[in-house]
Amino acid sequence: MANKLLGIDLGGTTIKFGILTLEGEVQEKWAIETNILEEGKHIVPDIIASIKHRLELYGLTKEDFVGIGMGSPGAVDRQLKTVTGAYNLNWSKTQEVGSVIEKEIGIPFAIDNDANVAALGERWVGAGNNHSDVVFMTLGTGVGGGIITDGKLIHGVAGAGGEIGHMIVEPTNGFLCTCGSHGCLETVASATGVVRVARQLAEAYEGDSKIKLALDNGEEVTSKDVFVAAEAGDGFANSIVEKVSFYLGLATANISNILNPDSIVIGGGVSAAGEFLRARIEKYFETFTFPQVRQSTKIKMAELGNDAGIIGAGSLASQLMEK
Amino acid sequence: MANKLLGIDLGGTTIKFGILTLEGEVQEKWAIETNILEEGKHIVPDIIASIKHRLELYGLTKEDFVGIGMGSPGAVDRQLKTVTGAYNLNWSKTQEVGSVIEKEIGIPFAIDNDANVAALGERWVGAGNNHSDVVFMTLGTGVGGGIITDGKLIHGVAGAGGEIGHMIVEPTNGFLCTCGSHGCLETVASATGVVRVARQLAEAYEGDSKIKLALDNGEEVTSKDVFVAAEAGDGFANSIVEKVSFYLGLATANISNILNPDSIVIGGGVSAAGEFLRARIEKYFETFTFPQVRQSTKIKMAELGNDAGIIGAGSLASQLMEK
Repeated sequence: MANKLLGIDLGGTTIKFGILTLEGEVQEKWAIETNILEEGKHIVPDIIASIKHRLELYGLTKEDFVGIGMGSPGAVDRQLKTVTGAYNLNWSKTQEVGSVIEKEIGIPFAIDNDANVAALGERWVGAGNNHSDVVFMTLGTGVGGGIITDGKLIHGVAGAGGEIGHMIVEPTNGFLCTCGSHGCLETVASATGVVRVARQLAEAYEGDSKIKLALDNGEEVTSKDVFVAAEAGDGFANSIVEKVSFYLGLATANISNILNPDSIVIGGGVSAAGEFLRARIEKYFETFTFPQVRQSTKIKMAELGNDAGIIGAGSLASQLMEK
Repeated sequence: MANKLLGIDLGGTTIKFGILTLEGEVQEKWAIETNILEEGKHIVPDIIASIKHRLELYGLTKEDFVGIGMGSPGAVDRQLKTVTGAYNLNWSKTQEVGSVIEKEIGIPFAIDNDANVAALGERWVGAGNNHSDVVFMTLGTGVGGGIITDGKLIHGVAGAGGEIGHMIVEPTNGFLCTCGSHGCLETVASATGVVRVARQLAEAYEGDSKIKLALDNGEEVTSKDVFVAAEAGDGFANSIVEKVSFYLGLATANISNILNPDSIVIGGGVSAAGEFLRARIEKYFETFTFPQVRQSTKIKMAELGNDAGIIGAGSLASQLMEK
């Protein structure tokens, strides 16, 4: 009887796999290196070989599985189950993914972009508490997200739904974003965005600060350095965290003012700053929301860490059951 | 056979009724005055009497109807089919609406707030072209809205979904809103908001302007006056329209950057400014959206006018069929 899910988290460095129960419990997990050589042509065959090997190892067959779900970087065509382009995989042309895996493994397959899939994971068994209305925001190299209403991801008419990183939080004098707009959330709240805000504020700051000194000396400063220094009492670092939290509070408030989700869950590398950052964001969130939303929508930190991808992919796979 | 819908648009001045086909065509419509005396206790009985009278007049019975839908001002409990408070109806306590109408008329009943219901109407047979992802924004005394994704309204965890008027568009130095926040869209894009922006800009404007003169003389100026003067070439009025359009462009862009709907439809009194206003909003919308959204989400003006309420209520009634 089909009572398992297979989740795949495809990344530029590693491909993570998980075998999950229908309730979202990870029973087995493993990872292989992502071989992006030769235009990434080894990736799909490597995935297939790894699945075949592990199913044999665990004594499982295709009949044990409801489906396979996959989160992928880049642009995804969910209907055709292809990846239409993913630069960090060296996939410049459309890649057949689902059709090949379905044919070789014989298990139904579903795919979505990695931020959407992580959103499904956090919603299902992470901070989202399996609520039907959850927004996920990931602060990493970029800022991505996924919006779940009524238990389903919002994809939008051109598949651009959930692109929280491109909300405009600084409509005048904002930094230029890779998307071509100015003032996107990503320009001030991604890992590089935090450092960009630091450089901007450094010009006017007068006072002792390890972070300012390092910036002025041309040393490498990371977003983590900024949060660590702020928590340790560095006044300059604190002003950076304030400004970043202002932008994140504004963005989370505006999302909530129109969608009123149960929670907004914040994940990704920058979110490692934990409660220190969450409480700051919440302060501005409360400033910018109206009473009904302030009292009902919660700001939370992600709980699943590295497993969000495979768990979310499992959640995606479980939706194949409903069809 | 049940092949008709009954839509009710409950307002503070009139109650509008419509009998519609399942395709959203209005076959009959009428209206009665809203009697808000004695804490609005006559409203529901008046509605019931009017429906009974008209059904008899048209030779229709309850068997002809799939359902009754109603849009109401104030706060609505969709599950209990009550209105928990509506000041312009003099309803300060929770009103039984659905249970009474269902008992007296014998047709299934559904209720939602008026902005959400208007959104359903515009989406169904108005500017939304029956697309599954449409956002509706109404610019009137206040700024309201309704968000439809995958064919369904987003209500949010506390029923505050779609409150577009409380998106923050001026996070620093914004005007105080009735909700307690500063810088809400409603403070600058409602009918009174447009005039508020006018007063703000009047202080610094030097030059000839009928509108500035009227403001300085303490004469009454309406948002309509501002748009008419701007279109006629009044430079000061034009600067007001620019600023209001900047805010509306920012709000519509941020909604679209996260939801990527097929269209955002703008209705309400202020939208009478038509293409003149739409084109200005679109200019800023294009500035603040990223390419995929800019190319796929459209800014449109509402098409249904006064009938949006009864048609939307009909759409709400048609959802009773699916249950």
